[in-house]
Amino acid sequence: MRLASLNDGTKDGRLIVVAPHGDHYALAPVATLQAALEDWTTWAPRLAAINSFALPLDVGDLLAPLPRSWQWLDGSVYPSHGALMDKALNITPFKPDWPPMYQGVSDTFHAPNADVPMADVALGIDFEGEFGIITDAVPMGTSAADAHQYIRLIVQINDWSLRKLAGPEMRSGFGWIQAKPPCGMAPFAITPDELGDLWADGRPALHLHVDLNGAPFGRAYGEPMAYGFHELVAHAARTRNLVAGTVIGSGTVSNENYREVGSSCIAERRGIEIVDHGEPSTEFMSYGDTVRMEARRPDGSAPFGVLQQKVVKP
Amino acid sequence: MRLASLNDGTKDGRLIVVAPHGDHYALAPVATLQAALEDWTTWAPRLAAINSFALPLDVGDLLAPLPRSWQWLDGSVYPSHGALMDKALNITPFKPDWPPMYQGVSDTFHAPNADVPMADVALGIDFEGEFGIITDAVPMGTSAADAHQYIRLIVQINDWSLRKLAGPEMRSGFGWIQAKPPCGMAPFAITPDELGDLWADGRPALHLHVDLNGAPFGRAYGEPMAYGFHELVAHAARTRNLVAGTVIGSGTVSNENYREVGSSCIAERRGIEIVDHGEPSTEFMSYGDTVRMEARRPDGSAPFGVLQQKVVKP
Repeated sequence: MRLASLNDGTKDGRLIVVAPHGDHYALAPVATLQAALEDWTTWAPRLAAINSFALPLDVGDLLAPLPRSWQWLDGSVYPSHGALMDKALNITPFKPDWPPMYQGVSDTFHAPNADVPMADVALGIDFEGEFGIITDAVPMGTSAADAHQYIRLIVQINDWSLRKLAGPEMRSGFGWIQAKPPCGMAPFAITPDELGDLWADGRPALHLHVDLNGAPFGRAYGEPMAYGFHELVAHAARTRNLVAGTVIGSGTVSNENYREVGSSCIAERRGIEIVDHGEPSTEFMSYGDTVRMEARRPDGSAPFGVLQQKVVKP
Repeated sequence: MRLASLNDGTKDGRLIVVAPHGDHYALAPVATLQAALEDWTTWAPRLAAINSFALPLDVGDLLAPLPRSWQWLDGSVYPSHGALMDKALNITPFKPDWPPMYQGVSDTFHAPNADVPMADVALGIDFEGEFGIITDAVPMGTSAADAHQYIRLIVQINDWSLRKLAGPEMRSGFGWIQAKPPCGMAPFAITPDELGDLWADGRPALHLHVDLNGAPFGRAYGEPMAYGFHELVAHAARTRNLVAGTVIGSGTVSNENYREVGSSCIAERRGIEIVDHGEPSTEFMSYGDTVRMEARRPDGSAPFGVLQQKVVKP
């Protein structure tokens, strides 16, 4: 099942069910994705039963599938990303024996084709291609083994980042505020069964195709997460209940063979350049630059659709 | 104007306007505080015009004035708190030349008289008495001088903390997830004019009376913030728009003369004990312990009412 939210002028949009071929849709019998998530056992079967998709879909009419959420928690569980970021940001962080995770702004997830306003090009504008999940309500203290059952939807995210602010904020120990403006989200949120065997042990076996201004930038593989999403859910829920609609991210998709597959953010490529040449040469983004992200199955199909965003002046 | 939210079985509660004497109320002409904040220029005059309060108020029937928010950003701007916490947590953080701020869980603010479930007493259960503000929508890039105008309401907060988790999470650089379960909020959200001259330069000139299990624990003064709330709003809005209903906290209220006025959290008292005796002697909270917080004007009146919470097993 693929779900999306039509821009109807409201903050939460209008929930739709998207046809398997992706170019038609049906209106859902529940108005918003948040409402569906809050009563999933009622709505999921009714959404799944829809098999007539009469309305033609224009992706330009879509908001993010969840245009805002009560909680956005982003992990960082691809080990090669962490190692390269330490180079890029010139930091030597304490390496925890748990999945690193920060809480980010959740009142806005940009639409998949949105122009994204950034305060200042001098701040080191960067993208981060990620996978994410959306949970049902999760009770405090849920184990990782039990957490699988609360993963309702899988999404694809661009975690926008301002690198010049990231290192100093990280050194403060308080996490990121200014370095992390709102994320973008690809058009479709999908149920795990859409991935079949490509979803195993809480990890997506998909390649994330990232292009910057039309040129290939990264083709990293989603599977090698040090912690699966079920473990991220359990980590987040250790001391708090999670409300339905909580979004949890993987952090930047990154592989050890980064010289072959490339990167899912500019900072990581700069980290590689520092390793190889002592200094970075790839510039961060400027106004007018566009990043395109599309996770693909081995057959080339794109379960989440295409996330394509242009950086603009506020 | 004093606003509160009645527990009517919904997540956001039912907005009410509380009489000046605090023991009666009127139903507001708009259902929720969030809705009022999203159209404040319409609703504020209508709320302020209410002068008949027929219904008797039982504080036990109240939720937090804003039971959930799209964003909760907590500063840490009382310098003596930071210095003592470094002792208590055994950390040597980088000291930024901006107000330290983390993003916390905002999907729940506990009711003023709620029993608060905590995962484990071994985690170092602690309170943090704070002031906070609730904003209107704030455009990205708003200056501190301009930010005053977006401060709609002032609130009193208990930022619950789990200290055994706080130091390690801080060292990770990602900020706090497990160390910061949801906060509590005192019964009444007030407009700045309720404080008159006691609200100046974005700072509340109130004393925060904190009692632990019925014994006085702290009487710290709210005024000596290193940054005023308008500066916290501008810091938060540098690279993001703030949505209406964003809650921003001061961090634990703390004064340089802490030996006279006491503390607004246990960790700070433990920091003092480490300074004085080389080790802490005050224990963190256990199940059944109660903390009471009440900010007072010089005349003894309590603009936010009383926040009193008991720690319980989940």
